[in-house]
Formats: sequence, structure tokens, C-alpha cells
Amino acid sequence: MPAPTKFTTYIDEHADSFIKRLAEAVAIPSVSGEGPRRKEVFRMGSWLEGQLNTLGVKTKQVDLGKHTMDGQEYQLPPAILGKIGDSPNKKTVLIYGHYDVQPANKSDGWDTDPFTLVEGDDGRLIGRGSTDDKGPIMGWLNVLEAHKALGLDLPVNLRFCFEGMEESGSEGLDDLIKSEAAKGKDGWFAGVDCVCISDNYWLNSRTPCLTYGLRGLAYFKVTVSGPARDLHSGVFGGTVFEPMTDLITVMSKLVKSDGTILVPGVAEMVPPPTKEELEMYDKLDYSIEDIEDAAGASIAVSSDKAKVLMGRMRYPSLSLHGIEGAFYGAGAKTVIPASVSGKFSIRLVPPQTPEQIEPLVQKYLEFEFGKLNTKNKMTVENLHGGKPWMADHKHWSFEAAKKATEAVYGRAPDYTREGGSIPVTLTFAESLGVNVLLLPMGRGDDGAHSTNEKLDKSNYIEGTKLLGTYLYEVGAISQNA
Amino acid sequence: MPAPTKFTTYIDEHADSFIKRLAEAVAIPSVSGEGPRRKEVFRMGSWLEGQLNTLGVKTKQVDLGKHTMDGQEYQLPPAILGKIGDSPNKKTVLIYGHYDVQPANKSDGWDTDPFTLVEGDDGRLIGRGSTDDKGPIMGWLNVLEAHKALGLDLPVNLRFCFEGMEESGSEGLDDLIKSEAAKGKDGWFAGVDCVCISDNYWLNSRTPCLTYGLRGLAYFKVTVSGPARDLHSGVFGGTVFEPMTDLITVMSKLVKSDGTILVPGVAEMVPPPTKEELEMYDKLDYSIEDIEDAAGASIAVSSDKAKVLMGRMRYPSLSLHGIEGAFYGAGAKTVIPASVSGKFSIRLVPPQTPEQIEPLVQKYLEFEFGKLNTKNKMTVENLHGGKPWMADHKHWSFEAAKKATEAVYGRAPDYTREGGSIPVTLTFAESLGVNVLLLPMGRGDDGAHSTNEKLDKSNYIEGTKLLGTYLYEVGAISQNA
Ligand SMILES: [Zn+2]
Ligand SMILES: [Zn+2]
Ligand SMILES: [Zn+2]
Ligand SMILES: [Zn+2]
Repeated sequence: MPAPTKFTTYIDEHADSFIKRLAEAVAIPSVSGEGPRRKEVFRMGSWLEGQLNTLGVKTKQVDLGKHTMDGQEYQLPPAILGKIGDSPNKKTVLIYGHYDVQPANKSDGWDTDPFTLVEGDDGRLIGRGSTDDKGPIMGWLNVLEAHKALGLDLPVNLRFCFEGMEESGSEGLDDLIKSEAAKGKDGWFAGVDCVCISDNYWLNSRTPCLTYGLRGLAYFKVTVSGPARDLHSGVFGGTVFEPMTDLITVMSKLVKSDGTILVPGVAEMVPPPTKEELEMYDKLDYSIEDIEDAAGASIAVSSDKAKVLMGRMRYPSLSLHGIEGAFYGAGAKTVIPASVSGKFSIRLVPPQTPEQIEPLVQKYLEFEFGKLNTKNKMTVENLHGGKPWMADHKHWSFEAAKKATEAVYGRAPDYTREGGSIPVTLTFAESLGVNVLLLPMGRGDDGAHSTNEKLDKSNYIEGTKLLGTYLYEVGAISQNA
Repeated sequence: MPAPTKFTTYIDEHADSFIKRLAEAVAIPSVSGEGPRRKEVFRMGSWLEGQLNTLGVKTKQVDLGKHTMDGQEYQLPPAILGKIGDSPNKKTVLIYGHYDVQPANKSDGWDTDPFTLVEGDDGRLIGRGSTDDKGPIMGWLNVLEAHKALGLDLPVNLRFCFEGMEESGSEGLDDLIKSEAAKGKDGWFAGVDCVCISDNYWLNSRTPCLTYGLRGLAYFKVTVSGPARDLHSGVFGGTVFEPMTDLITVMSKLVKSDGTILVPGVAEMVPPPTKEELEMYDKLDYSIEDIEDAAGASIAVSSDKAKVLMGRMRYPSLSLHGIEGAFYGAGAKTVIPASVSGKFSIRLVPPQTPEQIEPLVQKYLEFEFGKLNTKNKMTVENLHGGKPWMADHKHWSFEAAKKATEAVYGRAPDYTREGGSIPVTLTFAESLGVNVLLLPMGRGDDGAHSTNEKLDKSNYIEGTKLLGTYLYEVGAISQNA
């Protein structure tokens, strides 16, 4: 059941006023990571709550407490929970979004003021938050407005969970979700049948996609210590075991140039792809050229497209990030650092968990370090971790999104997994025990955290139709499922 | 011919006034590396010139021009050249010293004000510059004072070359030495028979030594570049060749944990020690325990004393200093750095030269990098270098210093080579073509560049006698050589 024609017509006819709505949202510099702008995040939350209330959504602000940032204590912006519709005959969809944005200053290299939405001749709507994540939130508001104006019943019950700290670690949100979920029938998320998050992007600038997987992470710090203080290489070079030499040696044992992970047991945990999966990667509208364009250099690890795409989406990867405690400046300093810490992380995919990976890394590093016969000491710490997430992409929620995509864009979506993580996804999936769908609105080249962040007008308007149509497709399923 | 008894008696009797002289010098905070204190370096130079003039030394200040430091232009402190005695029947000894000092602030952890000389109960004379290098310069002034007061003729002709930029790279000095040397008979260094520098330290706190070698240096920066910008490891990890992985791998090929240099041809250039040499190292009053005490941990590369001492003095060593361009902070950042530069240096010994070492390193790194089959790019730069220096320790100047040591300390000196470099040593040796003797006054635990820098009173007073006696021993030789 596609959306009624008058709904899509309404969206097209009100494109200008929807852009105005986005402009209003962008004009509030709700940067969660900058103390002086924290009050703007609160202002944004109130503005959003006002919009929801006007559109018939019952809301509640949830105080998430305080936190410390850059040595100062701040009040956390509230989570805004919303509720509209309570029909036992309809499915209930929980929508997540975040109303805070990344920092942005004209001096970073923006062509225009980041907090003034500018519409380019090419249809780009340029401004901080346009695509991450105010555009998608406005999309939901647009859908609500259309239904209110047209006197249409919503095809599903909706619940909203909007936060103002996503760009700064989503502080407090996990606890809120877990405690609301634990309340069961008395909680705000009672009866939720599925979750829909619009906070990621198409792989490219052409093809809509549905995202069903995210990689997890295990981040390690391996420290080698020797002398009591930094030494001069003239005086001590050649006489003592040097921590840097040992650290570089063990770090070199972790991963090969082509990305092969050398820690025994890590790669082996992941089953090989099925034939069906391989075909999916081959079919994805994303090429090695796209990846190399994004990286700015011809440095793909392979000329096999499926292999490279699976490298991002389906396999674990190990990256060496840097060294703490060694000389890092320009110029030539002849120091033997006393204690140095290598930082590296492993992106995880199902069925890997940080808990399983940690002992493998620990044991292997100890084995390699043991071979050195050095008198230095080594310690390994797991700085943080997160489980990978994968949804059933044949679930009815994904089927609904697929049909909606076909209806709005006239083509089937790509099915993608993301290389990074959106931790709240896993929290929803685990706390509520329901399917989570990532339904992106923007394109891969939107520059979410960069200068000149944009959302194409067509993605905004067609994306609004997509969100609404998705609800109708879910509604259609609810009649018989 | 030891010094006349009335000379040594004078030194003993005037110890208090000599300490006062050192206190006056320490009270001028002539820190060459700090812009606001640059004027104090000039004040120190004038004070020193005044002392020399009072003691009968003819002087000239040489303007060394300007330089830029921390983005600001400064006048370089002058070199102070001095001359006393012109007898064709006497040898001519050139004395070098530096009147600038390292930075020092009470807040760095000094127990007392660094620019107020404090005499401890234990005989330590504590203050910035006490041992590096104001103490030794005052030693020469004390010798001159004794001769003037006693109406004694100096046993040699003396030339002085004092600079005020040693702690900041000796800017301008090399050119001055070379141009004065090039003037031959018309230059300030005309007729110089040998050079004596007192600007290093005993190995330990017990045994005087003569130093006849310094290691050289070849400092390298190896850069691996790939993507056009830093990448997010979630999005790109597993899809591209990562510069850090390649850099860490090639850096791991340079040196083994025990210090073995893996660059083919480097270690092989150095001939094995003769039996006589080995015996010298075995006899040195310096132990593995001394080295580990100084390093603050039991991390010596061997339990073979001669091997460890030769590691510092007689063999090249390769140290990895750090990485520029990678993540170096605390915490966990998931970046794939776009371009990273490893810094490492090789300490050189005769007959190695930076010019010979560079192509070996270049070729080897290219070979190792080639094995990776990566699409990243690598470049190798030689950031700076200096030749090693070694003097004939059986030269008459060393013989004179040995006799002087026996006369003053009642024991033969240790013969040492230093692991670090004092570049001016080589400049004197090569420009003037004469023997250079390093005749240290202070002890290995003086903490030259550290907090609570000190010179023991006994080293100052006996050291003054040593410098004077050395001149008499040179004078004795000059009668028949
Ligand atoms: Zn976002
Ligand atoms: Zn974001
Ligand atoms: Zn010095
Ligand atoms: Zn110094």
C-alpha cells in the first residue's frame, strides 16, 4: 500500500515551506561539543518539542543529568520523547534522531555561514546539520504536517526519541532507553514493533539504500616501558633496551600492509560469505573508484570490488592510529622515550565481540613481546569497545522500506552494512528486542562532519516522501501480520 | 713538569673567592634559548670579557649576525676571542668554552633558585651553569688570576674562544672558526698547537677522564603517504592501504630489540676492537650498574661490561624517536592518518660518515618498502648529520693531561669516548688540523641539563689545579718537541 497521492502531492507543493523549516532548525547552532553553545542545544530541543506539539505529538522532556566536558560541568540536553497514535490495530514505529550538530565555523573553510541554510543553484541545501541529522528529523515533521493538514490518519502509531548529545557520545541516552524498556507496558516504548533511524547515508550519490549492519570496535593501548625517564640517544643508544624499538616491533606484528589481521583467531571467527551475499556485494552501486575518490588516492587494497566492499562492511579490520609518549613534533629530536603506548583498534563484525577479541590480542602481544627477550615491560589495555550490530534485512520493516523506496525512487534499494558504528542502534535492538532499520535520507557525499555540509533538495523532498511511504508500507503489513 | 707548588697553594687558599666568581657568573641568567633572556647572554659576555681583560687577556668581540628564533629575529651573542702570550718558544693552546646556559626555572623542580649559586653541606655548588659550562670557564680565569697575583709567567701562550650560543646550536660559530683558520698567520688562531675543551663529564663520580672520541649522527625522516586526507577507520579500515601500517612495518626492520642494526653495511663498516682497546673498556671505572642507575632501570642490553660500554662509545646505534603525523594524544581516536613520518637516527663512529650511511639507509628502506606491494608512497630524508670525531689519545696534549691528572688526583685518568656529539670539536680539529683534547671538570651525575645542576666544590678546585697543571705539562713538552 503506497502512500495516498494527496500525501505525495502535498509534499511536492510544500517543498519551499519544508526548506524554511530546515532553515529554522539549521539557524540554531546546537553544537553539543562546545560549552558556550550548550544553551543553543537546549533552545533547539525546545523548538523541536514545540513543532511536535503543534503537529499533535504528545511529548515529554527527560532530564539526563549533568556531565563534565573540558573540565567544566554542564547540564545534559534533554531527550525528547514523543507519542502519537495508540491504536491497537496499528503497528508502532519508534523513530530516533538527534537534534545536536557537529561544531562548525566559517573559518574552518566553509564557503557560507554554516548556520544559515543556503540553497545552491544545483539544489544543494548547505548548512551545518542539514543532513546530520536535522534534515531527517524535519522529514518526519513534514510527514506529520502533511497528515494534519490533509486530515489523514497516520497509518501507524509513532513514538519518537530525539537526543541532543549524539555528536558528543550520546551521554545518558543508553540508560534512558534501557530504563524505559525495562518498564515494559508502563514505559514510553511500550508496544514498539520496530525502530527506524535515519542518521546515515547512501553509499554514493545515486542509489538509495537500506542499512542492516554496523561494525563494532575493540580499541587497544599497548604500552612498553623501560627507563625511569626519557634518555638521550647519544648517551644511552646502544646500551639499553629501547621501548620504542620493542613497541614498533610488536605493532608491526598486528597487521599486514594489505590489511590481513595477524592476530590468530580474529579473522577466523568470521564465516565466509555465502554465494547470495557475494552477489549482493557485486551488485552494490558502489565501486572501487568511489572508494578511491573518497580517499583521494588510488590506494584500494584490491581490484576485486566485492573484496574491497566486504573489507569495509563484512570483515574485521585493524588500524594503527598512533603512538603516545614518543616524539611527535616536526624537526629532529634525539630522544629515547621512556614509555610509549601504541594505539590500535579492530573493527568487529558478527559474531565477534570485544570480550572475545581482547584475550586473543592480549595473548598474541605477550607471545610476540616474549620473543624479543627484552628487559622492558609491556602492558595491554582495552580502552573501549562496542559490539557489532546486524539486523535481519528480510524483516517486514526492511520489506516495507524496500517497497517505499521502489515507490518513491522507482528502483530497489542497495542493502548495505556500514564500517563504523552508531552505538544507539545496538541499544535499541537489545533493549527492545525488535528489528532496527537504518533508512538514510542523504547521500554519501553530504560531508556530514565536514565543511559545507549539505543535503540535496531532492533527497530532502523525496526523502520526506520515503519516510511517509515507509509508514504506509508498514501499515499495510500490520493489517495481516 | 708539574705546576709550581705556589700555584696549587694559591688555588687552595682562594677557593672561597673562586666560588664567589662562579656565583657571580651563575647569577647572570644567560639562557640563549629564551628570547626575553637574550640580553642576559650579552651581559654575561661583557662580564666575561671584563674578567679576561682584568687578568691581562687581550680580547675582541666578534659579531655573529642575527638569527630567527620562535619566529622573531634576534642578534646573536658575540664570540669572545682572547689572546695572552706570544712567545715563539712556547706552545700555544686554544681554549674553548660557552658562556650561555640551558633554561631553568624554579618551577621545573629546582630545590633552590637556579640562578643563585648555593653551596650544600656536601660540597655541591648548585646552580644553572655551575658545571655546564661556567665552572670550567671560571677554572681558566682562576688559573689566570693565580699567575697574575703570583707574578708567574704562563707556561704556554693561550688563545680563547668563548661562545654564547652553544645550548642553541652554536649558530655562527662554525663560520667564524673556519674563516679565522683560513686567515692562517693573520688569523686569531695563528700558531695554535692544540685545542682543549672542558665541556663534558667524567663517566662516574669517582674517576677523572680524558675524552678522545665523540659519535656522529645521521638523522632520518621516513614518510609514508597515501590518502589525500585523514580517514575514519570505520569507513575505510579494510579497504585501503594504510600509511601507518606500512611505516610501522619498515621501521620495525631497522633495529632489533637488543640494538643490532639491521641496515646492511652499517655495522660492518666498523672494525672490531683490538685487544688493547678491549682491555681499556674492561678497565674503565664504569659499570653496567652505573648505566642502569643513570637509566633508572635494569635494562642494559648485555651483562658483558665491555660490550655495553662499547655500545655507547665505540659502536653505532640506531634509535627510533617517534612518529610525526599520527595520533599522539591520550585517549582513543579512530583515525587513519594520511601521511606519517618516522624519525630515527644512527649514532656514527669512525670511519662512518653521514654521507656513506645515507645511501645505505635509503636503499634498504626502499627495498623493504618494495616488499610490501603497497600503493602508498615512501620518501626518505636525511634531516641532519654530523661526522664522528676521534683524536689520537697518545698525542702529547693527552700525555700532558694524563700527567696533570696524576699530579692532581693521584691516579691515571680513564680514557673515554662519548656517545653524543659536541660539533665544535670536529670543527676545530678539521679547521686547525691540530689535536683536540676534551678535559672534563665535572662528574657524570652533575645533571648538566637537569634541575639542581651542580658542580662539586672539589671538582671545581681540583679541576682548576688540573687545568693549570695541564698547561705546565704542555709547557714542559714544548721545551723539547
Ligand atoms: Zn548523525
Ligand atoms: Zn554526526
Ligand atoms: Zn656545555
Ligand atoms: Zn649543555
